[in-house]
Formats: sequence, structure tokens, C-alpha cells
Amino acid sequence: MKRDSTPFRTLTCDVFLPDCPARKVLELLAEKWSLLIVHALSERHYRTSELRRRIGGISEKMLIQSLRRLEQHGLVHRHSFEEVPPHVEYSLTPLGRSLSSVVQSLDAWVETHALQMAQWPGKKKATRV
Amino acid sequence: MKRDSTPFRTLTCDVFLPDCPARKVLELLAEKWSLLIVHALSERHYRTSELRRRIGGISEKMLIQSLRRLEQHGLVHRHSFEEVPPHVEYSLTPLGRSLSSVVQSLDAWVETHALQMAQWPGKKKATRV
Repeated sequence: MKRDSTPFRTLTCDVFLPDCPARKVLELLAEKWSLLIVHALSERHYRTSELRRRIGGISEKMLIQSLRRLEQHGLVHRHSFEEVPPHVEYSLTPLGRSLSSVVQSLDAWVETHALQMAQWPGKKKATRV
Repeated sequence: MKRDSTPFRTLTCDVFLPDCPARKVLELLAEKWSLLIVHALSERHYRTSELRRRIGGISEKMLIQSLRRLEQHGLVHRHSFEEVPPHVEYSLTPLGRSLSSVVQSLDAWVETHALQMAQWPGKKKATRV
């Protein structure tokens, strides 16, 4: 974090600073499944099993761990239904919903350019950095 | 990937499918340093040493590995100057520049909400998923 120069000396965050809370949040979002979970939950509420089917390739263990991390940071809400049989649903919190359009934009960019990147000539040659 | 229903049977990408090229690209971007490198290079060209100072906490080894991966996927351009002393600069390719506004939006969201997330009450309680 760094202090700005206003008389109120408010704290501002900066992802480029290694000890800033913003870096931790960026790392949370960049974990393997976080962005896909936020994207999926921006579509609708999901039960755990439905969410696992929606996100191809995720294991139940990783899904549960990722959901718990997102819940602990205020992005995901877990709702337990005391019905017969009981079940659990997940949704985005208002904070999570405020992130969803950015995540959808990122995924739209990825889906638009993935084939171009997969065929990029640079992948065939080794360059020294 | 999945085929759409048009007569041309074009291929479309889907980040939710584990074997789609889009998933691989999303994983590339979600690697620890990729987003920060793209963000930094959206500001201006950087020499390696400058880029390392800009991105707090990155090691030289990780910076070089990450730059090479981004270069191999067509997002980063490496330019070698045959001057005395010789040096190398990095910049975004046109493809990389097309990504920069999305990355900046994500980082802006992170910087705006990081303090709120760091203080989220859910971080203090353990919940079962």
C-alpha cells in the first residue's frame, strides 16, 4: 500500500507492491479455478455437483477448497437448504457480482484469441531472453 | 472447443472445456506473474532490469521464464538493441495490447476492493463447504 498526498492520507492499493493486500487478492483470483468459478456463478446459483459439471476438469476437492477461499474473501455466498434431502447452493455476493463483468471480459478475450495464440509461430522457435 | 450450428461449422472456444485451447490460455494468464507483466508493459517499453524493479517481488529467473512464455504465445515482443552496451527491451505485441485494457480493469477492481476483502468477516470464521 502507499499513502496518497491528500490531507486525509487515505490508503491506496497497488498490485505492483509485493506486500500490498491487492497482490494477495490478485493471487487469489489467479489461482487455477477462481476465475472459472466466479464466471460460472455469474450465470446463476449452482449446487456443488452442478458446478463441478459446469467447470470441466475440476476435482471435487479443488472445487470445495476454491469455493471456501472465495467465500472467506467475501466473493461467494454459501446457502444451506434444510430440506429433505438437504443441499447447498453457491452464488456470488454483491462484491463477487461486481467482479463478474471483468472476469467475463477476460474470458471473452481468451476465447476470441485462443486459437490464434495456439498457432503462434513463436511457439515453434526457441528464443533466448 | 465445440462446433457451433452454422453451416460453416466454425470452431468456437470455451474456457469451461478442459481440453480447449482457451483453457490453456487462461492458465497462462493466471500464472503468478503474467498479468502483472502485461499490465506493466501496457505502460511503456521496459528493459529487463526496469521491469524487475516495476514488479515488486519477482525474481530474475521467474521474470525471464514468464517473459519467454508470453513471447512464445505472441503477447510480448523482445527487441535486442545492438548498441554498446547491447541491451534488450520488451513491449506488448498488438495482440498483447488488445489484452491490456482487460487486465488493467481487473487490477483496478482488485486495488479498489482489496482492503474490503482483507477485512472480510468470513476470514475469521471457519465454515464447512
